[in-house]
Amino acid sequence: MQRAADIAEGILAGRKIALARMISWAENSDPRFPAALAELYPRIGRAWRIGITGPPGAGKSTLTNALAIKARAEGKTVAILAIDPSSPFSGGALLGDRIRMEERTADEGVFIRSMASRGSHGGLARAAVDACDAMDAFGYDLVIVETVGVGQAEYDVVAAADTVVVVLCPGAGDGIQAMKAGILEVADVLVVNKADLDGADRLISDLEEAVHTRGIRRDGDGDGDGRWAVPVLQSVAMRGEGSEAILGAVDTHREHRAANDAEGVRRKKRVAQVRRVVDERLDEELWGAGGLADRAESRLRDGATPYDVADGILAEVLGARKHAR
Amino acid sequence: MQRAADIAEGILAGRKIALARMISWAENSDPRFPAALAELYPRIGRAWRIGITGPPGAGKSTLTNALAIKARAEGKTVAILAIDPSSPFSGGALLGDRIRMEERTADEGVFIRSMASRGSHGGLARAAVDACDAMDAFGYDLVIVETVGVGQAEYDVVAAADTVVVVLCPGAGDGIQAMKAGILEVADVLVVNKADLDGADRLISDLEEAVHTRGIRRDGDGDGDGRWAVPVLQSVAMRGEGSEAILGAVDTHREHRAANDAEGVRRKKRVAQVRRVVDERLDEELWGAGGLADRAESRLRDGATPYDVADGILAEVLGARKHAR
Repeated sequence: MQRAADIAEGILAGRKIALARMISWAENSDPRFPAALAELYPRIGRAWRIGITGPPGAGKSTLTNALAIKARAEGKTVAILAIDPSSPFSGGALLGDRIRMEERTADEGVFIRSMASRGSHGGLARAAVDACDAMDAFGYDLVIVETVGVGQAEYDVVAAADTVVVVLCPGAGDGIQAMKAGILEVADVLVVNKADLDGADRLISDLEEAVHTRGIRRDGDGDGDGRWAVPVLQSVAMRGEGSEAILGAVDTHREHRAANDAEGVRRKKRVAQVRRVVDERLDEELWGAGGLADRAESRLRDGATPYDVADGILAEVLGARKHAR
Repeated sequence: MQRAADIAEGILAGRKIALARMISWAENSDPRFPAALAELYPRIGRAWRIGITGPPGAGKSTLTNALAIKARAEGKTVAILAIDPSSPFSGGALLGDRIRMEERTADEGVFIRSMASRGSHGGLARAAVDACDAMDAFGYDLVIVETVGVGQAEYDVVAAADTVVVVLCPGAGDGIQAMKAGILEVADVLVVNKADLDGADRLISDLEEAVHTRGIRRDGDGDGDGRWAVPVLQSVAMRGEGSEAILGAVDTHREHRAANDAEGVRRKKRVAQVRRVVDERLDEELWGAGGLADRAESRLRDGATPYDVADGILAEVLGARKHAR
């Protein structure tokens, strides 16, 4: 039974096995995680966190790999957290890329970890942010979180990053769909990967038009006064092309943030993490073993509607809370 | 300003416009919904609810349409709730099918409604079940809920149905991926659509092997003693082929349930709805305007970790609750 203090110490001493253990604690909601985090907390905040998302097949893994190689060449250390798709219908295809990336772990300046999103029932974003905190405390310069852009949980994971890179590729109408669905609104940097394919020019100009004409200019969270002009970049990640420009855009975004309440933006993202921790524990307390399910079932058996039953539960929980204030 | 009682009365009188209004209330979390539901509650439970899910492109909309036509030919009335994909990367493609289906609304015995899943932030499954309750109270024999199989919310929507039909089609390795990812575990009926395409025989035999050899036999919720042998059916929904057999399998599943604590299974699904209502309202109470976000931010500013802040909030909410019991 390892103690939280030992793991924290291991991380500060640069032992990857301690980092891996701490991330497992995050994934498993191990009670030792918060204690280890508390010890490491003063060391957190130095890393810049990049969230990478996009549709299946856009080449996110390849691009992540290319960015990691480029960042290493620039002397930066890199930790990668790859969220495996939660969709039962889109999983699996990334495994090959993953394995190729794992080969890079011989490099001491790179750390790669994957986290399954399926079955996480809402705890995914909380665990992913916890894992990034651990990677950050370890001392990596860049923390890259990569996720397929499906579902609310994956969105939450990416939205927790400092710079969000949305990767699209020509074909399948993804660019248009992304625009319609508002995915551009989360992007700080847009990348058209596979830019050597037919249709890339069209997609790039469509995206540029959307960014400029439709006025999609934002500063990340809508806070602060600074407006950020989302750049539309291109890459051929398979050949490493475009990585330098993308990392440059990330740096520029970082500087933009530094001039526009970077700490305030990060604190807002951290409030979201508090909320996830609270929600997860409330859920366990109210609906876990010995919770309210049996009582709810019995009231339903008596003919109460779900809203009637919920009202009773809420009156008890919130009534008590209000009373306590 | 329409009153809940008027809408409930309209639904009992068979006015579709009242049903449409009540479903909008469900979508918008209108406070009149619970009141209308309470009036209608004794009328709910007669409809059989079919959940249809599967990967994009499997032909779910076409199959839903074909099943509705067949059910109408058998003299049954049908309500359809189509959940539009939440994924920014898979949306849009179904629109054509949707429009074709809407043409059938000239038939008084059919009601079609779509509900957007994007941006619902967890309220989707609650709203979808609410909508099904309203359709049920209206008097439809069958309520079909169709959703793309991505994300937890969509899964919850389908899991709330009485019979879950998972639709796959040859190609893209979806069958294998579905097996790996455990999607078969939610299926009461498996359908291989586009059964005239190459690879259909292989997919069917793979699924049959998975169902029989790997012992995927269940009774829906794991409750009761009855074991249900999941049938593997085929269809060419575009030509209406297979619909009769699928509806037959749904009927057989319904009879199986009737002999195996159907009410108990439904009540368990309804507890899940209570939980969704409670979670949604707790979330609004704790994190909505005037909630805890500002206080959390201020504690974070003082250097507390997210877990520290969460602990303080939980001690207040749950401590008070425990005190109240």
